[in-house]
Amino acid sequence: PGKKVLIVYAHQEPKSFNGSLLKIAVEELTKQGCSVTVSDLYAMQFEPRATRNDIVGHLHNSEAFNYGVETWEAYKRGGLSKDLVEEQKKVQEADLLIFQFPLFWFSMPAILKGWMDRVLVQGFAYDLSKAYDGGLLQDKLSLFSFTTGGSQEMYSNKGIGGDIRYVLWPMQHGIMHFCGVKVLEPHICYAPENVSEEKRKEMLTAWTQRLKTLWKEEPIDCSPEWYFK
Amino acid sequence: PGKKVLIVYAHQEPKSFNGSLLKIAVEELTKQGCSVTVSDLYAMQFEPRATRNDIVGHLHNSEAFNYGVETWEAYKRGGLSKDLVEEQKKVQEADLLIFQFPLFWFSMPAILKGWMDRVLVQGFAYDLSKAYDGGLLQDKLSLFSFTTGGSQEMYSNKGIGGDIRYVLWPMQHGIMHFCGVKVLEPHICYAPENVSEEKRKEMLTAWTQRLKTLWKEEPIDCSPEWYFK
Repeated sequence: PGKKVLIVYAHQEPKSFNGSLLKIAVEELTKQGCSVTVSDLYAMQFEPRATRNDIVGHLHNSEAFNYGVETWEAYKRGGLSKDLVEEQKKVQEADLLIFQFPLFWFSMPAILKGWMDRVLVQGFAYDLSKAYDGGLLQDKLSLFSFTTGGSQEMYSNKGIGGDIRYVLWPMQHGIMHFCGVKVLEPHICYAPENVSEEKRKEMLTAWTQRLKTLWKEEPIDCSPEWYFK
Repeated sequence: PGKKVLIVYAHQEPKSFNGSLLKIAVEELTKQGCSVTVSDLYAMQFEPRATRNDIVGHLHNSEAFNYGVETWEAYKRGGLSKDLVEEQKKVQEADLLIFQFPLFWFSMPAILKGWMDRVLVQGFAYDLSKAYDGGLLQDKLSLFSFTTGGSQEMYSNKGIGGDIRYVLWPMQHGIMHFCGVKVLEPHICYAPENVSEEKRKEMLTAWTQRLKTLWKEEPIDCSPEWYFK
């Protein structure tokens, strides 16, 4: 109640299963009295490419373009492009970041990876010796909510895809933990395209139910042990 | 000699360390008599977003857009967009795929992730029950060559970043192995921005040296054991 939530959403089709999961989250969290903002990346035609266009005005070193250095310097002087500033404002205000997407190739769709690459710049999300538990986005929570193509059996220790937690390491630890953001248990809907309509409804209900008690959850211990035992 | 190599390159600046690694690969492999093609993603302004624009003409189901289904159907009828057809042709002809990039957030830059998302469509790279050792891109090799921001110590078992092999799982196993492509040992240059000029030169020399005997290398055993012991 009164909490602010940013949902970063990466699916092209509102009628998709991801679209339903987004709708549920917006409705349930709003009902709880949360203030919910959605960054609908495809609808925004969000730019995933990290280029010189992200810096307004002069470059720190125009002889050899270094994206990390240039965005850091631009952040400090307030010279990042408007779309980045807007996303950073949303992140800054949020208590909880929810990422809703279909797993593409054991990772995020490129448009969402581009959001990470471009929004979480040095100076804003982390800094020299300010990373992991010292990251700049402390006191925030994150939650990766995604659908898969493969089944739960495939994404198990015995399955060909390996434990699903292996794919969570770069996203949860490498990005969110790096920035100081705490990580809630992921929410995974396995192979919604390959299950019965009844099973799909159960999945949607489970998401609603989880959201009802979300604020009582404890973050995971985001260390190698959680991922690799 | 006579082998065909596709280098998919994702750095904005030719004068960068990644640019030097690319130049070395092109020169050394050409000297060996290989035919080398480079997809310079930023220079091409390669589109990373997976959208309806990737399908030429009518959709299989225009009621609810499903990217995986639509690109699969479009592939079968020869209806993928021109930029994808061109990349697929390069992949088809190649004996070896080299991916050259700076590690961004424990993964590929979004522009390169977008290349994976959009080029490796069902029907072309894998198909129903044709994945992993049965993937459609067999008899090809791949090599991930990248630079990091963090040091080798950070990306070790004892380091906060964890074993570097953890981040290779989604890329090497989840993408290349999934498509049937064999995987050579990755080539990793740790923190070139933070080492001496002499050390940087050593890194470049090491890459040249490795390329000289590349064709004698055996692929790794791309199973969970390689990544997680």
